[in-house]
Amino acid sequence: MKDKIPYYAVIFTSTQTDDTKGYSKMAEKMETLARQQDGFIRIESARNTIGITVSYWESLDAIKNWKANTEHLFAQQKGREQWYNWYNVKICKVEREYEFVKNQESHKQKL
Amino acid sequence: MKDKIPYYAVIFTSTQTDDTKGYSKMAEKMETLARQQDGFIRIESARNTIGITVSYWESLDAIKNWKANTEHLFAQQKGREQWYNWYNVKICKVEREYEFVKNQESHKQKL
Repeated sequence: MKDKIPYYAVIFTSTQTDDTKGYSKMAEKMETLARQQDGFIRIESARNTIGITVSYWESLDAIKNWKANTEHLFAQQKGREQWYNWYNVKICKVEREYEFVKNQESHKQKL
Repeated sequence: MKDKIPYYAVIFTSTQTDDTKGYSKMAEKMETLARQQDGFIRIESARNTIGITVSYWESLDAIKNWKANTEHLFAQQKGREQWYNWYNVKICKVEREYEFVKNQESHKQKL
């Protein structure tokens, strides 16, 4: 699960409106599309009160290209018009990473 | 919701075991304790299949101090022994941030 450092993370946090019609389908479509982009590494999502999606990319250019992708631009627009009350996007450089796996050599550190 | 750039994000992703007894209480206690640390900015969590908690800090030193906090060390140990099948921790530098707020001047960008 660990990737070559440094790489980049996009932390997307959001709260939704009451009108989530069409959201799940679009989210699924965007995830499929993101996975096809050059420089894509991985995506992880969870939602309770707040939704957190973190996507990981090999470079800032890969993130820039994904942001400017035509179908993604359309989804972003729909999101602002219909699905989201608020969202925040943070572009981050992953500088250090460590991981624990139960019943394996645990807590390896990678600097 | 936006903070002075650069600052740091700790992305903590995890999957849990079936034995989550005591977890919620400890998670709440650790969140309260984290909020009291020097350099703490904010924490956001969501969990479905995977749990994602992102905490934000003013500096790498603040993160280091929190990791080494005695009560937190105990919680980390309990987590490895009982609650988590897997977790991954990424220390990230937040380099860029933008935000959308419905019905406000939207999509402000901060470089």
